[in-house]
Amino acid sequence: MNREAAGREFRQRLDDVAQATEFMLDRLLVADPLPGERVRPPRLVEAMRYAALGGGKRFRPFLVVATADLFDVPRSQALMAGAALECLHCYSLVHDDLPAMDDDDLRRGRPTAHRAFDEATAILAGDALLTYAFDVVADPATHADPAVRSELVLKLARAAGPGGMVGGQVLDLAAEQQLKKHTEAAVRRLQAMKTGALLLYGVEAGAILGRANNKQSAALSRYGAALGAAFQVADDILDEEGDEAALGKRAGKDAGRNKATLVAALGIDAARKRRDKLADEAIAALEDGGFGARAAILSEAARFTVERRS
Amino acid sequence: MNREAAGREFRQRLDDVAQATEFMLDRLLVADPLPGERVRPPRLVEAMRYAALGGGKRFRPFLVVATADLFDVPRSQALMAGAALECLHCYSLVHDDLPAMDDDDLRRGRPTAHRAFDEATAILAGDALLTYAFDVVADPATHADPAVRSELVLKLARAAGPGGMVGGQVLDLAAEQQLKKHTEAAVRRLQAMKTGALLLYGVEAGAILGRANNKQSAALSRYGAALGAAFQVADDILDEEGDEAALGKRAGKDAGRNKATLVAALGIDAARKRRDKLADEAIAALEDGGFGARAAILSEAARFTVERRS
Repeated sequence: MNREAAGREFRQRLDDVAQATEFMLDRLLVADPLPGERVRPPRLVEAMRYAALGGGKRFRPFLVVATADLFDVPRSQALMAGAALECLHCYSLVHDDLPAMDDDDLRRGRPTAHRAFDEATAILAGDALLTYAFDVVADPATHADPAVRSELVLKLARAAGPGGMVGGQVLDLAAEQQLKKHTEAAVRRLQAMKTGALLLYGVEAGAILGRANNKQSAALSRYGAALGAAFQVADDILDEEGDEAALGKRAGKDAGRNKATLVAALGIDAARKRRDKLADEAIAALEDGGFGARAAILSEAARFTVERRS
Repeated sequence: MNREAAGREFRQRLDDVAQATEFMLDRLLVADPLPGERVRPPRLVEAMRYAALGGGKRFRPFLVVATADLFDVPRSQALMAGAALECLHCYSLVHDDLPAMDDDDLRRGRPTAHRAFDEATAILAGDALLTYAFDVVADPATHADPAVRSELVLKLARAAGPGGMVGGQVLDLAAEQQLKKHTEAAVRRLQAMKTGALLLYGVEAGAILGRANNKQSAALSRYGAALGAAFQVADDILDEEGDEAALGKRAGKDAGRNKATLVAALGIDAARKRRDKLADEAIAALEDGGFGARAAILSEAARFTVERRS
C-alpha cells in the first residue's frame, strides 16, 4: 500500500472511531441513573454532554482502539476505555478553559462550557466527567477480568493525577508567570505530563486490554510517549502558524504570554525537526515490538500527528 | 458497658482512626512521584496537603475502619480505603468553597484553599485529590484481590459522580436559586446525594474489603444510608444553633439563602425528631445484620451523629 492510500485508510478509520466514540458517549452520558445512583440532574448531564459530545478528532479513543486491534480485543471493550479517556480529556478542557485558568471563550468553535452554562456548572460538569471516567473503566462491560479493570484504573489515575496531567497544568500555569525563557528540558517535561500522559495512556490502555506481553508493552509505551510528544510539538507549531477557523480556538495565543512551548524554546525550524524526529521514533518503536503490518495504522497515526492542519 | 463508657470508647477510637488517617495521608501526599508519574509539582502537593491534612473528624475513614473491623480486615487496608475516601471528601470541600460555588473564606477554622493559594491552584488541587482517590483504592496495597479493588473503584465513582455527590451539589446550587420553599422529599434526595453517598460508601467500602455476605451487606447499606441522612440533618440543626468557634466555619449561613435544609422544610423540632429516628433506624439495621456486640462501635457512631456539637 502506498503512502497516499495508507493515509486515506488512516483518516477513514479515525473518522470511524470518532463516530463510534460519539455513539458510545451518547449512550453513556444519559440522565438515567445507574445502580447505586439516585438521579442525575438534567442540567448537569446537559453540561457533561455539551463538553463531551459533538466534536474533537477523538484521537485518544482512536489510539485505544488501534492498539487494542493489534490483539483482537472486542471493539466494544476498546470503545468503553476510549470513551472513559475522552470523558477525562474533556473534563481537562473544561477546567483549563475556566476564568481562573486559561480564561478561554471558544473551544471547538463553540462557547466554552462556563460561557454556555455558568462557572459553577462547568466546574461540576468537569468533576463529574472525571469521576465518571473511572466508573466506565471499572465497569465489567469494559473487561470481564477485574485485574485488567484495576490496572486500567490505576494507570489512568497516574496519567491524569498530580504526577501526570494535573501536575502538567500546574507547571504550565506557573511557567506563564515566569519571566525568563523556558528551557527545552522544562518544556518537554511539562508537555509529557500535560498532554503526553493521556495520549500515552490511550496506547497503554489498548495494550492492557490486549494483555500485551512485556516486550510488546515496552515497545508500545515507547511509541505512545514519542507520539504524545510529537502531538504536542505539532500543536505548538499549529498555534504559531495555524488559523482559527481550522483550529476552532484562538490561534497565536501562546505568543502573547510567556507560554512554555517548544517553538518558543527552540525556534520554529528546530521545533519542526523535533516533531518529525519524534514521529520517526514512534514508528521505530512499533518495529521493535514486532507487530509487523498490523501496526501500519499506528505508524500512520504518527505521520498524522506531524502532518495535521488542525 | 453503660452508655457513658461506650461513648468514651467511641470517641477514643474516633480519635485513634483520625490520627492514623492523618498519618496515612501524610505518607501518601508526598512530592515523590510514583511509577508512571513524572514529577509532582511542589506547589500542587502543598495545596493538596493543605486541603487534606490537619483537620476534620475523619468520620468517613472511621466508618471504613469500624465496618472493616467487623470482618477482621487488616487495619492498613481499611486505612488506605479510608484515606482515599478522605481525599475525595476534601476535594469536594475545596471545590464547594470556590467563589463560583459557596464562596466561603473559612473552613475548619483556616482560610479556604483558594484563599490560602489561588483559585486555579485550588481547582487543580481538588482535581488532583479526586484523581488520586482512585489511585489509592486501585493500589494493590489496598487489597490483594483485584475484584475487591475494582468494586471499591466502581462504588466510589457512583457515590461521588453525577448520580451521587456531584449531582447533589448541582441540586443544592439550583435549590438556592429557587424562590419557593423546598419540599421534604426534595431535601432528602439532595442530602442523600450530596453528603449521604460518601458516608454510605464508607460503610460499603468496609463491607467490600471484608467480603460481607449479601445479608450483611444489605444490613450495612441500610445502616450507612440512615446514618448518612442523620448526619446531614444534624448538620442542618448545628448550623441553625451552633457557634462558629466549635464548627470552624460560618454558622447560620443557611438561613440567609433559600438553602435546602430539613430545618427549613420541617422546622427545628421535627428535624430533631427525624434525626433521632434515623439514628434509631441505623442501629436497628445493625441488629438485623446479626453482628452482635461487635457492632457496638457502629451503634455509638449513630448516637454520635445525633449528639455531636460540631
